[in-house]
Amino acid sequence: MFDPVEKLKEFIRHPSISTDSRQGAGMKGAQEFVAGLLSSLGFTVEVVRTKLHPIILAQRGGDPAWPHLVIYGHYDVQPADPLAAWKTPAFEPTIIGNRIYGRGAADNKGPLMTNIAAVARVLEANPRLPLRLTFLIEGEEEMGSPSFPGFLEAYADRLREADFVFLSDTALPNENQVVLTCGLRGLTLFDVHMIGAKGDLHSGLHGGVFRNPIQALAEVLATLHRPDGAVNVPGFYDDVRDVHPWEREELRKLGADEKAYAEFLGIDTFHPTPGFSPFESARFQPTLEFNGIGGGYQGEGTKTVIPSRAFAKISCRLVPNQEPDRIKQLVIDAIRARTPPGIKLEFVDQHKGDPYVVVPPGRSNTPRDQSPILARAFQATETAVREIWGRPPLYLREGGSVPIIAEIKRVTGLDSVMFGLFLPEDNLHAPNESFNLDVMRKGIATTERILTELAAVRR
Amino acid sequence: MFDPVEKLKEFIRHPSISTDSRQGAGMKGAQEFVAGLLSSLGFTVEVVRTKLHPIILAQRGGDPAWPHLVIYGHYDVQPADPLAAWKTPAFEPTIIGNRIYGRGAADNKGPLMTNIAAVARVLEANPRLPLRLTFLIEGEEEMGSPSFPGFLEAYADRLREADFVFLSDTALPNENQVVLTCGLRGLTLFDVHMIGAKGDLHSGLHGGVFRNPIQALAEVLATLHRPDGAVNVPGFYDDVRDVHPWEREELRKLGADEKAYAEFLGIDTFHPTPGFSPFESARFQPTLEFNGIGGGYQGEGTKTVIPSRAFAKISCRLVPNQEPDRIKQLVIDAIRARTPPGIKLEFVDQHKGDPYVVVPPGRSNTPRDQSPILARAFQATETAVREIWGRPPLYLREGGSVPIIAEIKRVTGLDSVMFGLFLPEDNLHAPNESFNLDVMRKGIATTERILTELAAVRR
Repeated sequence: MFDPVEKLKEFIRHPSISTDSRQGAGMKGAQEFVAGLLSSLGFTVEVVRTKLHPIILAQRGGDPAWPHLVIYGHYDVQPADPLAAWKTPAFEPTIIGNRIYGRGAADNKGPLMTNIAAVARVLEANPRLPLRLTFLIEGEEEMGSPSFPGFLEAYADRLREADFVFLSDTALPNENQVVLTCGLRGLTLFDVHMIGAKGDLHSGLHGGVFRNPIQALAEVLATLHRPDGAVNVPGFYDDVRDVHPWEREELRKLGADEKAYAEFLGIDTFHPTPGFSPFESARFQPTLEFNGIGGGYQGEGTKTVIPSRAFAKISCRLVPNQEPDRIKQLVIDAIRARTPPGIKLEFVDQHKGDPYVVVPPGRSNTPRDQSPILARAFQATETAVREIWGRPPLYLREGGSVPIIAEIKRVTGLDSVMFGLFLPEDNLHAPNESFNLDVMRKGIATTERILTELAAVRR
Repeated sequence: MFDPVEKLKEFIRHPSISTDSRQGAGMKGAQEFVAGLLSSLGFTVEVVRTKLHPIILAQRGGDPAWPHLVIYGHYDVQPADPLAAWKTPAFEPTIIGNRIYGRGAADNKGPLMTNIAAVARVLEANPRLPLRLTFLIEGEEEMGSPSFPGFLEAYADRLREADFVFLSDTALPNENQVVLTCGLRGLTLFDVHMIGAKGDLHSGLHGGVFRNPIQALAEVLATLHRPDGAVNVPGFYDDVRDVHPWEREELRKLGADEKAYAEFLGIDTFHPTPGFSPFESARFQPTLEFNGIGGGYQGEGTKTVIPSRAFAKISCRLVPNQEPDRIKQLVIDAIRARTPPGIKLEFVDQHKGDPYVVVPPGRSNTPRDQSPILARAFQATETAVREIWGRPPLYLREGGSVPIIAEIKRVTGLDSVMFGLFLPEDNLHAPNESFNLDVMRKGIATTERILTELAAVRR
């Protein structure tokens, strides 16, 4: 019988840090481990080469009338630094109480193994299960999935045959409450540079004579929000669709506590988009944030210089139906129009991603043409969660961005069912990452139920 | 006969970089060279210890009825980096045409040697010259003269006996035009830090919920100037005294060309204080400048973080009769009043310096109680400059700050006659620093005349 905890231990032992070129053996080990495991479960495994780390594409075919699920995951992990902060070795999985510690335990090795284990168990119970399955497991998620869009384009025809994508790479608010993430914010990022004189100049000899680019930058950035917190860029909110009452209602059911949230953030005042609570603002509204700023002398003491340049790193989080390129252009146009004479502008494009939303069946805004298989998947998930977790899942949009989800939708037309499994206390991307084995156990049972239910459907 | 060029070569050979602790031998060599030279000219030399580099105090006493001049200079130099950019060795003085190349040639070894040479020559010509002289030569000027204020306090009684300070550590606009600097801007510097949440936070999960300190900083900094360029801080200009018509007239005589200045700066639009030309603005008006700004992620690519903190380095250049502490408080008060809720403030004090002005005799704003010896010094200087340079000196205030000049005035009551000798093309603080030997020759002759004239005066 498939032992998910032992398999997870083996998986964690491979130090598969995708951004660390010295960890080639760890990446290869993790990739081969997953490929071998899926092969042993009867899958036809292809290892698709990319410029960096291969993508594992493992298929279980069958009758075209059988539903077809794509299960997404990733075998790479974040770096483990600072190593000295770990209480157990980062790549030696250690069980303490009901938790397994190790880099990648929660992101994404534990949740991925949860899904693999569910597949293993349903296939053990019924080797002839009428369900087609494709695992799509990449090795560059922690680097921003640079090879993934190219892979999607190349394999679009095969992926388009499937009914939907299932993945566990989002969060639970606590170990008793399942959340099915049904929306993600998109984003667009760019840097703006402001340039004044041709070199850094002495602020005594030349101060008070021409424009200081730090001052110009501050003056322009200061125009980009209204005092109430709303973004002050013409057209910015034009395409934002209304929030539906059921979305606010689901969020209310989460019962999140503003006081506890303020304490967690270490702030004494919220400043959300006007008309929205802090929790609503982060999920339902777009933002324009400054992620970095720099210019002139930043060291100890003083250097009385008027710098030649200053810059800011700007990101906008986007919600349906905002388009990244259009929003970026609106912001750039506003910056151009508001930059004073004597200051030159340069913009550096960074990445972007579309916002994403999938609506469960039966809601006021469920698309009329929603795939019946997707609707059944949501219903099966809801039923399974109610029984195994003792309460229904919540359907929530999240403030974060997982650009590949929107990209899969754009290229293949497939929607995603995001069944979150990691917890706020799992220390993702931090020392002492761990995964809750009770959550894993319940997750396996839930996914087993979902797969079994879906196998009963005919297309 | 005293050979100033040979002596200057010897002086330059000592790599007296005060900020470089590996250059102890160079500092000691330069200090001993100057002390020995002044001793050989008959001065009583004291080497006054400080925490870092000693101050040389060399005196030629005499009848209390004789005028008493303090000649200021410094024996330390800037670092010579980047060494690869030098066309001749930085500490091997090299004469090419009418210039001597080497670190410190113009700042301040050449000008100081000009004054020492003039003293040597008048004393050679008349060993019984009825003039008292005190050389005050420090070794920490290039580090901001940290020991100088303490020295002044300790030696105030002796210095107060003198009539005025003479120094050559300012600039000539070109080799035909002498400028007597009669004003320097003061300054006050501090850092402001703005603090939001208790740590850096994910801009997807938490963006749009609370105030980003970069945004708050930009919004507050943007309020500190009006669109016309004036500083927008209540009371900032209250103590600024009017510019006298003769001051504007002297500046007009300089004949500085706005187009050439714009080209030098690499700008296409000036932005001076309203009502002032760029040249007037830099000399007669105070500023509030941002010398540095920083916060969040500043590297390549992106990191979608809302930083916990952001900061700016602020400096104000001050003119008579602004007080550094009062102005700093006004700016801090304005920042406090304009900082939005949810943002904590921290201020870090940096240094400060009073503005300074000395008015030549016979001007509309010459103090009624001006010392007759100081008035005679200005007259003697003007006469000597007219004869030796073929045109009268200009009396100009400068935009830069030399805090020790105001400090000498504050502690000892002594005014300074600033007879500039270096040229814009001398590359101060840069590779290939040099000093014009024609300027040196004319400078020696001028100072000889000044000393001789003053020796004819009785107190």
